[in-house]
Amino acid sequence: MTHFVLRCGRCDRRYAADMTTLACEHCGTPLDVAYDASAPRYLRGRHDMPLPLADPASALTLGEGDTPLVPLPAIATEVGLDRLLGKLEFVNPTGSYKDRGAAVMIAVAREQGITEIVEDSSGNAGAAVSAYAARSGIKAHIFAPATAPAAKVAQIRIYGAEVHSIEGSRDDTADAAVAYSRDNKIVYASHAWSPYFPEGTKSFAYEVVDQLDGLPPDHVVFPVGNGGLLLGAYAGFRELLEWGHIGDMPRLHAVQSQSVMPLVEGMAGREWDSSTATTTVAGGISVVAPVRGAQVIDTLRATGGSAVAVLDEDILGMQRLLASGEGVFAEPTSAAAFAGLKLLVWDGVVERGGLTVVAVTGFGLKDKLPE
Amino acid sequence: MTHFVLRCGRCDRRYAADMTTLACEHCGTPLDVAYDASAPRYLRGRHDMPLPLADPASALTLGEGDTPLVPLPAIATEVGLDRLLGKLEFVNPTGSYKDRGAAVMIAVAREQGITEIVEDSSGNAGAAVSAYAARSGIKAHIFAPATAPAAKVAQIRIYGAEVHSIEGSRDDTADAAVAYSRDNKIVYASHAWSPYFPEGTKSFAYEVVDQLDGLPPDHVVFPVGNGGLLLGAYAGFRELLEWGHIGDMPRLHAVQSQSVMPLVEGMAGREWDSSTATTTVAGGISVVAPVRGAQVIDTLRATGGSAVAVLDEDILGMQRLLASGEGVFAEPTSAAAFAGLKLLVWDGVVERGGLTVVAVTGFGLKDKLPE
Repeated sequence: MTHFVLRCGRCDRRYAADMTTLACEHCGTPLDVAYDASAPRYLRGRHDMPLPLADPASALTLGEGDTPLVPLPAIATEVGLDRLLGKLEFVNPTGSYKDRGAAVMIAVAREQGITEIVEDSSGNAGAAVSAYAARSGIKAHIFAPATAPAAKVAQIRIYGAEVHSIEGSRDDTADAAVAYSRDNKIVYASHAWSPYFPEGTKSFAYEVVDQLDGLPPDHVVFPVGNGGLLLGAYAGFRELLEWGHIGDMPRLHAVQSQSVMPLVEGMAGREWDSSTATTTVAGGISVVAPVRGAQVIDTLRATGGSAVAVLDEDILGMQRLLASGEGVFAEPTSAAAFAGLKLLVWDGVVERGGLTVVAVTGFGLKDKLPE
Repeated sequence: MTHFVLRCGRCDRRYAADMTTLACEHCGTPLDVAYDASAPRYLRGRHDMPLPLADPASALTLGEGDTPLVPLPAIATEVGLDRLLGKLEFVNPTGSYKDRGAAVMIAVAREQGITEIVEDSSGNAGAAVSAYAARSGIKAHIFAPATAPAAKVAQIRIYGAEVHSIEGSRDDTADAAVAYSRDNKIVYASHAWSPYFPEGTKSFAYEVVDQLDGLPPDHVVFPVGNGGLLLGAYAGFRELLEWGHIGDMPRLHAVQSQSVMPLVEGMAGREWDSSTATTTVAGGISVVAPVRGAQVIDTLRATGGSAVAVLDEDILGMQRLLASGEGVFAEPTSAAAFAGLKLLVWDGVVERGGLTVVAVTGFGLKDKLPE
């Protein structure tokens, strides 16, 4: 662990890389991993990628990543684009992109001798963390809202995790997890807070560039709740850019539900009134107070990207078209990105002739079944 | 279509390769694809593989295949093996290995100008065929037993297929599909009958050999209903053997449920009494009269393999251990293969020191949720 530290992106303070330091003690900002020049790199496709592991033998895998990148011609026509590709992140061992982040976060935990963890999740992160915890012999406590889809909760449970079902809001669930972690002195391995989670999801960027023969796309669109994939992808593209493997940073865009849109309002310079939150079919991005919200907004701005909010009926329409027009069955949260893309094209933010990639984050069977 | 014909494996008669000739007109045996020496091959990992397409541009893909091959140490200990790998076939675009077969079968249909098909399935094949049909603009009618899991039926439906729900046995469903196909003059694109389906699943063998750096495993264990993966894998290993890419044919083993075990009885030289069939948690292999049953038995014998039957309680126990011990959430049908492997090791058929691969065929969320 001499090759990397945890760094505050706001005030640049450094901390030793352990599993318990999550926020800057000075300003409260969630931390990121910072590597020194000697950090070992791990082959990822055609490039080498640094990882926050002291020993390569600590790596943990269920075969996550290497997901398909496929043309989506029916959706391209619907939204008004010439070139649209879907990165099918649901073709992962637990059915969502969260496997990338969980694999690295749990490998770090195991390397540091952690045997028990706490996490809170509306479902997909809980399943991913539970699966990789099971694979590494770590006991997992997963706090989930009582309203989480039955399929996701059943999946978490069969991996052997202890599910703590919490009444109230998604924030109440997070509060309960933090309290349990503190009271029982168990590591809070939160996909939202942990600096190691985006270090796992950054492989998304490496793969996209490899699959496009070294050329980055012009735009990448993500459904965003906590931003676990968007932030990781940005870290990956930035590494590739710094080392001269790509010449341009793609513009990254975030899509939220109109029911819960703190980042969309934040991008517009407004404070979102969380008392206006309503339920949405896009449960995976229904995050009222994203821990790394400021970082997501900084990232969008740094890439010239944007954030848009969409309606449930448009999300469900896109879910149907994805399945019946492309053969791609995604959960509503993932379909939201395509509804958002349609607005971005309409607004002229995404140009017809550019190459756009959309992250299709979760499998359709993970959420409530469509009628 | 000059590069291949359809061939009867029993009486060696040849037929033109279309989508409507399914059985030998002389002896009723389901047909196989036979290539001539000029057949074009398609790069698959490190090897070239022939496919039944006249034009490479006809290929159809959602990114199926290239599934993970991962060590399963907890199950290895449980069954008494030193070296056990799981080929995670559920990490496919619709959540099962059926995508390999459907991709090729539907590509052939599209190349031949077919616009509407009929298929019958307990779920996974129906979902795969529906997804690839959606992707190629073909209308699919899927006949499914009224008892098929709700998740699988919902998945078929969202891909835009018309679901025909049939009361009665799995065989009644097949009969209804055949009658509908005949009465409405719609092609019967059956994963059980079609010679093109195993041409798709044979990529399984090419990948395993690639992932093992050119060395085939000693044993491969499959859950078997119709044998769609086992037969394809055999075809693939045989091609690799004939062309000198591997030196030995692995021994292929079939696992069935004790509730429905025509192949296990067939291997023992007995006729299975189908009136003894009972329901099983392993719905995907609950096939009372497998269309290619004789071919499966010939294949097992040709490789020195065997067939065993397992109990539901052992299947569910393996499903739990796979999830909690390995982080792998498979449907009960897939877990059956591990319960069978335990018997094969116990019987001395599979030796402790050999390298064994098990096909983990379907995702856990596809079936009824575990309690």
